[in-house]
Amino acid sequence: MAQRHLDPTGPRTGSGPGPGPGPKTGPATGPAGGPVIGPAGGPAGGPAGPVPAEALAGYLRAQATEFLRALRLHREAGAGAAASEGSVEAALALRRAARRISGSLHTFQAVLDPGWSEAMRPELAWVSGTLALEHACSARLERLLQALHRLSGTGALPARGPAGAGASGGPGRSGAAARSSAPAAVAARGGSPSASSAAGTTTAAPERGSLTVGAAKAGALLDRQLTLARTRAHSTALQALGSSRFHAVADKVAVLASEVPLAPAAPATDLRPLAEAARERLVDAVAALPLLTAGSPYNAEALVHGLSPDPAPHPQDAPWHQVRLLLRLHRYAREVLLRAAGAAEAAGTPAGTEPAAPLTAVVLPAAPPHDLRLLVAGEALDRHRDASEASAAAAHAARTPRIAPATAYALGVLHADQRHEVEAARYAFQLSWQKDVLGSSQGGPGGPDPVRPR
Amino acid sequence: MAQRHLDPTGPRTGSGPGPGPGPKTGPATGPAGGPVIGPAGGPAGGPAGPVPAEALAGYLRAQATEFLRALRLHREAGAGAAASEGSVEAALALRRAARRISGSLHTFQAVLDPGWSEAMRPELAWVSGTLALEHACSARLERLLQALHRLSGTGALPARGPAGAGASGGPGRSGAAARSSAPAAVAARGGSPSASSAAGTTTAAPERGSLTVGAAKAGALLDRQLTLARTRAHSTALQALGSSRFHAVADKVAVLASEVPLAPAAPATDLRPLAEAARERLVDAVAALPLLTAGSPYNAEALVHGLSPDPAPHPQDAPWHQVRLLLRLHRYAREVLLRAAGAAEAAGTPAGTEPAAPLTAVVLPAAPPHDLRLLVAGEALDRHRDASEASAAAAHAARTPRIAPATAYALGVLHADQRHEVEAARYAFQLSWQKDVLGSSQGGPGGPDPVRPR
Repeated sequence: MAQRHLDPTGPRTGSGPGPGPGPKTGPATGPAGGPVIGPAGGPAGGPAGPVPAEALAGYLRAQATEFLRALRLHREAGAGAAASEGSVEAALALRRAARRISGSLHTFQAVLDPGWSEAMRPELAWVSGTLALEHACSARLERLLQALHRLSGTGALPARGPAGAGASGGPGRSGAAARSSAPAAVAARGGSPSASSAAGTTTAAPERGSLTVGAAKAGALLDRQLTLARTRAHSTALQALGSSRFHAVADKVAVLASEVPLAPAAPATDLRPLAEAARERLVDAVAALPLLTAGSPYNAEALVHGLSPDPAPHPQDAPWHQVRLLLRLHRYAREVLLRAAGAAEAAGTPAGTEPAAPLTAVVLPAAPPHDLRLLVAGEALDRHRDASEASAAAAHAARTPRIAPATAYALGVLHADQRHEVEAARYAFQLSWQKDVLGSSQGGPGGPDPVRPR
Repeated sequence: MAQRHLDPTGPRTGSGPGPGPGPKTGPATGPAGGPVIGPAGGPAGGPAGPVPAEALAGYLRAQATEFLRALRLHREAGAGAAASEGSVEAALALRRAARRISGSLHTFQAVLDPGWSEAMRPELAWVSGTLALEHACSARLERLLQALHRLSGTGALPARGPAGAGASGGPGRSGAAARSSAPAAVAARGGSPSASSAAGTTTAAPERGSLTVGAAKAGALLDRQLTLARTRAHSTALQALGSSRFHAVADKVAVLASEVPLAPAAPATDLRPLAEAARERLVDAVAALPLLTAGSPYNAEALVHGLSPDPAPHPQDAPWHQVRLLLRLHRYAREVLLRAAGAAEAAGTPAGTEPAAPLTAVVLPAAPPHDLRLLVAGEALDRHRDASEASAAAAHAARTPRIAPATAYALGVLHADQRHEVEAARYAFQLSWQKDVLGSSQGGPGGPDPVRPR
């Protein structure tokens, strides 16, 4: 799931910003972030003057166009019972555009028609949430099976057919896998350790040949549960895409692609303070994180409550999830501003009418590495979320009635392993955040820095 | 178990080096390592000239005296069915002296009567190994129960009576604890998560009130198994201390306290090359460790094979255990040399007859921090060993037939937690080792440094 955040987020011009088929190379589109570094340290890295609401309108139109393009691709790829690779990619692009529109509506609320944006945002969140579920289930299963193989010392996961990446493979296949390990289960229940390990190597299904009985059965159980959840999510997504509710959203997005409903005061409003407010919300939320603890390796914090009786997700993860969302909003707000700067650069004129201040000229070329660091920090938080949810899935599976002790033991090891992944992701986020502070002196938890045009 | 390595290892003079009752302060005994820093950067930090075999003889006599003193204390404290705190301390002192004698026989083999030292070493190893087992069992149980409480988010372990530190508390007490959690077991087997968590808070025994059912039952199972092992170890130790084999060892040690059987060539032999060889064996063994991996936090290396079908201890731990032993031998060899230097300092004369080389004078004042770092590194390796054995005990308990899935799940989490402790200990060792290299430019994995008189 992390790679969807690796898509280039540099400024784009033209109305075809998608990485898929379509007008790919506009006049000023170099490598991501390329045009941002001006030839003479000028105001190219970001808008030096006020950014008009029109920049937001352009961004929203481009994202709406991308949404409609992805929707068309999704329908062409066929969205039957077995989703093809093309439809998976199209769904990803659809969610990407929906998130960006929804996030921009949130950050730049003040310049948009309030009634329209308040009606639009929950609908876009519904679309992106509904489409995300299927992918989340298959990614979670993949992560847990990989971990089981790693924990068994068998290295990489053997090829599992198209089930890992896409959405094929019905409950029938996983049911067969579960049945094939049933004799091993019997052997494990009463046998000695050596007997059960011998049974593990002889009777387990070929694709799990190198796993212990417990790991194989835990894998089969997770496969069953998460495949079922994925199948349900797939049906739900199909129903949603065919619903009148979705058609209403698509109609609204089609209107948005040509006409953005701005607020009456919008023409006189500068977008930069709104983007700055989004950044400050992020900085405040990061400052509230226990970064000092996260920065000392092996603090064993993530596994506290690992055996707590509360089956709910770890409450200690919530602030990190919140920062993940705020970091995304900050990134999208930067995309709007950088897009304005890029467009100005392409036209050969400064973005605003004010001359660039010297401070701005010095600081702004650092923006692209900053964006790279934002991506790295965001990936760490994605990993945090994925590991957190995977650990919860392992704990949930362990509460299945009548499982064998060996299965429960393997799920316990797996749960703890994923909780340590959570801790490792926090450590990685903290590292990238500290680097961010050192590199560009912004976004640090230390406090607000002087007002900077962004 | 780690605190026994915090005993001062600085040079001691006089025949009463024990921390217990006895002549505690000899004429030159300052704070540990105190006398080593000479007032003028002279040859005080370590012997500048050759160290005669007589230094070893003095060290062995002192340790033999300490062995006999500890043995007397142990007998006086009473070694019945319930060991008192005094007898536990006396056993620690007995093992400490036995380890030091045995290690010195190994390192300085060349200057000792070969027949005598070859007969003596296995006997001393038997004494120290037999006496260690009981303490290891209770420390392991303590560590695992602490971890269960930490993992349940209940903070510190409630007071468990004298069973934690000493060796009291028979199987009766743990049996009662196991029985008290039996109703919770029934509730957990078929109930829903909410029902079982409710049962956990209402029916668990008072001392485990805040644990989940699984954690409480895992704790009771470990308590049963490790208390049984400890009781057996206690009986074995009592039998050993009363055996004719032990009396023969004690007689030999009594002879050693007055007369050390040196080899014919001993008077002409310098002890420093022998100590240097011990250091080089340590350096070579550390160089073979995967320190680069251990130095990158959250490498997840220690949990690979965490679900492997092999019930044997982790093979990846063996080189670290080996380094632990070599580090100990190096420390004991330094004690012999530093004792010689301390004695020379106390007498106001250089240890040898040669003048101190300038290089020696510059480098040697760094020795006491070096010793401190050796202690820190040794503690990390003790923690590595303890966590490794505790994780194996959790995995072993999970193979008990007919345990509940919730118990097995908790043991799986516990196993993974202790494997991460193993990884954390490796990280800590690596840190202290790197500091060692930077601080005193010796003992590093990089290669041999110039010959230094030690």
